[in-house]
Amino acid sequence: MKITILTVCPEQFHDFLNTPLIARSVRSGLLNMEIKDIRDYAPGSFRKVDDSPYGGGAGMILRCQPVLDALEDVSEEGSHSILMAPIGKTYKQEDAHRLSEEEHLIFICGHYEGFDARIYPYVDEILSIGDYILTGGELPAMVICESVMRLVDGSMKKESVTEESFERGLLEYPQYTRPYDYKGEKVPEILLSGNHEAIRKWREEEARKITKERRPDLLKDEDEE
Amino acid sequence: MKITILTVCPEQFHDFLNTPLIARSVRSGLLNMEIKDIRDYAPGSFRKVDDSPYGGGAGMILRCQPVLDALEDVSEEGSHSILMAPIGKTYKQEDAHRLSEEEHLIFICGHYEGFDARIYPYVDEILSIGDYILTGGELPAMVICESVMRLVDGSMKKESVTEESFERGLLEYPQYTRPYDYKGEKVPEILLSGNHEAIRKWREEEARKITKERRPDLLKDEDEE
Repeated sequence: MKITILTVCPEQFHDFLNTPLIARSVRSGLLNMEIKDIRDYAPGSFRKVDDSPYGGGAGMILRCQPVLDALEDVSEEGSHSILMAPIGKTYKQEDAHRLSEEEHLIFICGHYEGFDARIYPYVDEILSIGDYILTGGELPAMVICESVMRLVDGSMKKESVTEESFERGLLEYPQYTRPYDYKGEKVPEILLSGNHEAIRKWREEEARKITKERRPDLLKDEDEE
Repeated sequence: MKITILTVCPEQFHDFLNTPLIARSVRSGLLNMEIKDIRDYAPGSFRKVDDSPYGGGAGMILRCQPVLDALEDVSEEGSHSILMAPIGKTYKQEDAHRLSEEEHLIFICGHYEGFDARIYPYVDEILSIGDYILTGGELPAMVICESVMRLVDGSMKKESVTEESFERGLLEYPQYTRPYDYKGEKVPEILLSGNHEAIRKWREEEARKITKERRPDLLKDEDEE
């Protein structure tokens, strides 16, 4: 898979490229990751990527020309471009699966007060990672890249992925590790039973219980029990 | 405000500390940011923070002792501790406002297959930034810190905050900047009119239109119009 990030803050991606998952994927040839500075597409020595909004208002708006020239330059046949913005569709685990099938993802990170709206029709989709405001699209692009690469990465155990929260419309069951007794709080006895079928059932029930308690909205599409 | 991050990957926060918003807040004395390695609280030369799950299953689970010893060590009177996990309440802009009033936020970042469930009762709240799975709580902690510090930071113009997506239950209206004509696509005439009241009304209508089209769920609590 190839991932291209278009950003006005390329320096924010150094640590991310060095996270174990991304570094390992690049090393093994599974991922080709490219970080491009949108400023390189802005003319003149000022490399001005933004300007004040028509009609007045606070902040600066990213201009069409540098963003769309950058997008055109990095696009290849089969590229899938994603613009990160609060008006986008809310990203979910099912989108991670969908995007993990793409050959080339292009992320366009906003900054300042956002994009000139004439940019929107040029991208394949607009995504938001949640209902909160950030200073730019850089952290959201990292979040999506990480969640997608977890699925693409051959080193993830399949069992590990399918048992997780959101994969089956349920939160994950509670997990415990040593010691058996932590300041009087003990591990549920069933987990020490060695009875795999009973443990599987208990975990399934606990996953349903915790989902019903904390995220009943995830269960709403299921049949009533 | 003070923010403490408890993580097994402290090296992932270097770039984040250098982002303009965070660096400026630290420089001006508005923010005291502390990154602590949970491994420093694990005994022995191996500094082992995780162990395999009781009852079997893939991956490793973060142990109670290092996590809770770290939490106890960094906690002060009035500290508010947040554990990042998929089972948490979904973080929203209203939570950013709520957390921006706290004196000391402590973020506990999970990793591997998550936390020993006996850790949960020790924290003030559990938050999730969205319905997708990441490799750890580091990016989610950065997302929340950034959204909170935008509100704490004195340099943000008030007008800029209140007009944004989610602040009034609406997505933001479309924005435009120069040039007036980009490859035949022109800026809506009203934005050039100089009629501030008409522009305000147009933006309000556009915000409603785009919200209805893309995120009707945000409007569901409002009266029908």
